[in-house]
Amino acid sequence: MIIIMRPKAPQENIESVIEYIQSRGLKAHLSQGEMVAIIGVVGDKTRLDNQNIELLDGVEKIMPVTESFKLSNKKFKPDPTVIDIGGVKIGGGSFVVMAGPCAVEGKDVLLAAARAVKDAGAAILRGGAYKPRTSPYSFQGLEEQGLKFMAQAREETGLKIVCEVTSQQAVETAANYVDILQIGARNMQNYELLKLAGRTKIPVLLKRGLSATIEEWLNAAEYVMSEGNDKVILCERGIRTFETSTRNTLDISAVPVIKEKSHLPILVDPSHASGVRKYVSALSMAALASGADGLMIEVHPDPAKALSDGPQSLNPSDFKLLCEKLRPVAKLIGKEM
Amino acid sequence: MIIIMRPKAPQENIESVIEYIQSRGLKAHLSQGEMVAIIGVVGDKTRLDNQNIELLDGVEKIMPVTESFKLSNKKFKPDPTVIDIGGVKIGGGSFVVMAGPCAVEGKDVLLAAARAVKDAGAAILRGGAYKPRTSPYSFQGLEEQGLKFMAQAREETGLKIVCEVTSQQAVETAANYVDILQIGARNMQNYELLKLAGRTKIPVLLKRGLSATIEEWLNAAEYVMSEGNDKVILCERGIRTFETSTRNTLDISAVPVIKEKSHLPILVDPSHASGVRKYVSALSMAALASGADGLMIEVHPDPAKALSDGPQSLNPSDFKLLCEKLRPVAKLIGKEM
Amino acid sequence: MIIIMRPKAPQENIESVIEYIQSRGLKAHLSQGEMVAIIGVVGDKTRLDNQNIELLDGVEKIMPVTESFKLSNKKFKPDPTVIDIGGVKIGGGSFVVMAGPCAVEGKDVLLAAARAVKDAGAAILRGGAYKPRTSPYSFQGLEEQGLKFMAQAREETGLKIVCEVTSQQAVETAANYVDILQIGARNMQNYELLKLAGRTKIPVLLKRGLSATIEEWLNAAEYVMSEGNDKVILCERGIRTFETSTRNTLDISAVPVIKEKSHLPILVDPSHASGVRKYVSALSMAALASGADGLMIEVHPDPAKALSDGPQSLNPSDFKLLCEKLRPVAKLIGKEM
Amino acid sequence: MIIIMRPKAPQENIESVIEYIQSRGLKAHLSQGEMVAIIGVVGDKTRLDNQNIELLDGVEKIMPVTESFKLSNKKFKPDPTVIDIGGVKIGGGSFVVMAGPCAVEGKDVLLAAARAVKDAGAAILRGGAYKPRTSPYSFQGLEEQGLKFMAQAREETGLKIVCEVTSQQAVETAANYVDILQIGARNMQNYELLKLAGRTKIPVLLKRGLSATIEEWLNAAEYVMSEGNDKVILCERGIRTFETSTRNTLDISAVPVIKEKSHLPILVDPSHASGVRKYVSALSMAALASGADGLMIEVHPDPAKALSDGPQSLNPSDFKLLCEKLRPVAKLIGKEM
Repeated sequence: MIIIMRPKAPQENIESVIEYIQSRGLKAHLSQGEMVAIIGVVGDKTRLDNQNIELLDGVEKIMPVTESFKLSNKKFKPDPTVIDIGGVKIGGGSFVVMAGPCAVEGKDVLLAAARAVKDAGAAILRGGAYKPRTSPYSFQGLEEQGLKFMAQAREETGLKIVCEVTSQQAVETAANYVDILQIGARNMQNYELLKLAGRTKIPVLLKRGLSATIEEWLNAAEYVMSEGNDKVILCERGIRTFETSTRNTLDISAVPVIKEKSHLPILVDPSHASGVRKYVSALSMAALASGADGLMIEVHPDPAKALSDGPQSLNPSDFKLLCEKLRPVAKLIGKEM
Repeated sequence: MIIIMRPKAPQENIESVIEYIQSRGLKAHLSQGEMVAIIGVVGDKTRLDNQNIELLDGVEKIMPVTESFKLSNKKFKPDPTVIDIGGVKIGGGSFVVMAGPCAVEGKDVLLAAARAVKDAGAAILRGGAYKPRTSPYSFQGLEEQGLKFMAQAREETGLKIVCEVTSQQAVETAANYVDILQIGARNMQNYELLKLAGRTKIPVLLKRGLSATIEEWLNAAEYVMSEGNDKVILCERGIRTFETSTRNTLDISAVPVIKEKSHLPILVDPSHASGVRKYVSALSMAALASGADGLMIEVHPDPAKALSDGPQSLNPSDFKLLCEKLRPVAKLIGKEM
Repeated sequence: MIIIMRPKAPQENIESVIEYIQSRGLKAHLSQGEMVAIIGVVGDKTRLDNQNIELLDGVEKIMPVTESFKLSNKKFKPDPTVIDIGGVKIGGGSFVVMAGPCAVEGKDVLLAAARAVKDAGAAILRGGAYKPRTSPYSFQGLEEQGLKFMAQAREETGLKIVCEVTSQQAVETAANYVDILQIGARNMQNYELLKLAGRTKIPVLLKRGLSATIEEWLNAAEYVMSEGNDKVILCERGIRTFETSTRNTLDISAVPVIKEKSHLPILVDPSHASGVRKYVSALSMAALASGADGLMIEVHPDPAKALSDGPQSLNPSDFKLLCEKLRPVAKLIGKEM
Repeated sequence: MIIIMRPKAPQENIESVIEYIQSRGLKAHLSQGEMVAIIGVVGDKTRLDNQNIELLDGVEKIMPVTESFKLSNKKFKPDPTVIDIGGVKIGGGSFVVMAGPCAVEGKDVLLAAARAVKDAGAAILRGGAYKPRTSPYSFQGLEEQGLKFMAQAREETGLKIVCEVTSQQAVETAANYVDILQIGARNMQNYELLKLAGRTKIPVLLKRGLSATIEEWLNAAEYVMSEGNDKVILCERGIRTFETSTRNTLDISAVPVIKEKSHLPILVDPSHASGVRKYVSALSMAALASGADGLMIEVHPDPAKALSDGPQSLNPSDFKLLCEKLRPVAKLIGKEM
């Protein structure tokens, strides 16, 4: 940590700050400029209530030097994490495709979607049983019945399944059915939910919050991992900006940034990022080429009849075309799809 | 709802859309321009899966005309909501000040804070017992013990108390102690939590999410209200933008916008909005002058020793000075403080 | 400046960086932590191509300590700048109101506006002769003829006049007419224009760019001031965010932030910030209470007939009401209006 | 255009609006809902001061139906624009790479860069002679001397050249040297500059403004095109958001959005978008895969010695590696590189 003193801060202020640091068993290194004095702090920072140093007389600001996330940090575990879900690998050299409807609406429509995405090349079926909707008057999901349909679709197709959870009860119920628990963007900083998901030890797909920085996102992963669950899959799904031609703005740079800072796998969800079906294909290609470990895509047998997110869902034939475009590029850049 | 057809959409597309609408028992009004046809839809829109109309052939986009929030909407209840908490009024002609430490750290420091804010003129004591922190390695709150200290502070000072809740268990526990349940910014779209808070029938202080639009915020209020709890107090606490000289950007316009769209009272939290103690006074004055119904301010007996948010906390004497600046302006503009 | 080395950077990297700094005549102070080494740099930083230090082996990042703006910086000139425009004072203890139509549309309508704003209490008339419009197909302004009408309005009413300039030619022409040159938000980083305005020595009203940080804004002021013109008036006019219920988001915190960082006066333009007439009054009150030095408000004798920005313009009677609300608050907080 | 009336607006208001529209020679179609009346307007909207309709009694808001940009609009010219610069094609099936230093610093270093980028496969040399810098105290460019060096580099290598212009004088001078005039992000809404560039008839590379929506960007192109210059090349270079791990946020979705809305070619500049050298390769690959027509990349023979933007510049060998990664993917997806 670095402490920047105010320009021409009096010598006694500087000395007080140094004493404060030393009194807590840390070392202080003074760098005295003509205008500004800088104090480097060395040692175990958990002994400091570091925010408060800003309130000592003469202090301009403090700057952290080391990152606040640890378990997800590549500096402490350089090798990429590979999560194996009954033979389906996420991370490392593979490129995984998760696809399916936004919401589980009924058994038949879900099975139709499952067969279609399996046929096109997806390895994992997505489908929401607990739907967080902006308005309380929108369709809220089939809950446990939806999970049962998902499990039946797994049985029939061999696809693994991923479902979003939105409450303690949903975590407890879903833990009996799913292969991957999804924490949605709106709940990325619902820390109680993150801890519950961490305790299940089931792999967690953690979507980035609408306005979460990458550092906050990795800190959210830290909540899951600090409960002893290191199987976290990150998923970039667009951030909120001023641009309105897409529902959110896909932050494609998050892929190389995460690859540099963390060992966790990162997927991209172009359906939620854009909110517009006709942009999904271009964004999927971009995600693959940027180095992402996979995609999460909304596919519905008949998007015009979907109860949720129809406009951003691909139909099965468009999804198949997309997979056929992705596969040779994946091969060319050395990803197994 | 309005449906905009693509430029020069064929007549059969237009007719299909009209048929679709009529088949669901609604009326369609065609407005045929040279380039573009527009179809107005009249009737009960809940009979339509309206998103999906976008997917019908020839449709460019749909535009909602009426707002999605109902119970919080001023159009349906023009008179301002006034919430009476044992004699302390929030909304209408009063200007309420809530103040206290970010986190409850211990009995003595809380009582010192409570006495100080009471003395300066606050009516309600704030203090967090369940703290949602960005990093799992930061102080997380005293939980029920913190609530007990808050209740003791109420007993001793006569102040009402408000505490944040972050989980089902926290709601259930806090319901036994507090006068107002607070839903924090990070949980504004934690819909399960909103519903639980709604069911308690205790007044709910609902902070705006970091990147929530005003419409999404009112829809979050709708989740509380649709459970039969119409005692919702909104609190603007800054939104996330590109500017870094303040921690968030106080959206002062939210005050007149909410006053126009909703009957619910709106407070401003200048401490979280700015994150910087020296800006709190100017922003508090702005909030009062803009028409807000009150303030929520962080005050700590000794900010340099606070376990959370020290840099944005006022000390008791600065808070007293602020109240003395606010009072004559409140009087001048006809607010009772 | 501070240089942060990578965790466990080899000793030879650290030495190379220190040598690089010393070779340019500056001093380097090493603060060696267990994980991270930090190097404080003392001396004249203009001798360093400082960005490139980031590229030296083992360097993680560099952090500037001192601010890049000098002439506008309060640290170097603590007293507030007061600009005297023929007796009308901007800055210090006064609260100035600039008002008038968005665009000069004709002589009669301008004179009607001028008389109305003079009557209500404005000291300065605003009116655009060169209009930067998003679409080339919108009304672009009367140019020099507009300036002549403004000068006539000054003659008749005694109001001072402020007009926006958008090109070299506009600066040269306007310099013959106006009391204050306005640089609009879209041109805040049009550095050639800033330098030209600086050379005129006429007071410059510098609007904040739509997505400019406060630091970039003060650096733009620096372009004007470094040409020898220290009469710069800042004007906050809303920044671009995700919120859509107002056209822009008024960053009211900019007022106390500027008051802390700079000696220059700061006005607020609630008309452009909100884009909505009915919010102008609340935001004007907030600006005054927050400590702003004045307001710039759009007033049109008949907003429904305005060629530009009608929806955000007040009519004369609403403007008069607003001034009557502002005046007692100004008096109460010690501002001369 | 659609006019939405307030809920339960009185019949006389509705009639007044209809009369207003008809009095200007347009047609009005009324769609009367139970709560809300909607009026569709058909005819030549330039006869309306359309903003002002919002101010008529009973009007809630107006909604444009057709887009404000015309010449750049794909609806009016479906075929993609291909710009031929002495045999180098931009748009259509080709993938062009522009590369070179941020600023022209001297003849030798420029020639070294030119040879390197030519060797790796670039077709066009970039290099700034007029540099818009945030601080007036930073290096501002070599101006005409820089243009001369660029022309010499063209002569020696056969590369075409592109240079940024920042003022009327720069346009006039640069027109004698360059193959493509570049308008930078900070000047995207400097309409006078856009018009001057339009009049030269030289191809214009128009960077997106830091906080410009795609619609504003296309309207800026419209300023160039409405002067009779239809050779506009768009360049996405990152937008301003809250995320700080990259300097800006590359809006990769802009590629498919532009491809849908406009016939103009679109490039991506990953160097300015990220500001970080190590992310340039991943973002370049993403741009290619998303369907962009080319790249603009900063390459410097010795980034650590660059006078501007060193940290985001590739060195020649990294650039060569990147081109070798791009080429097979370009071939696979049918782009000529």
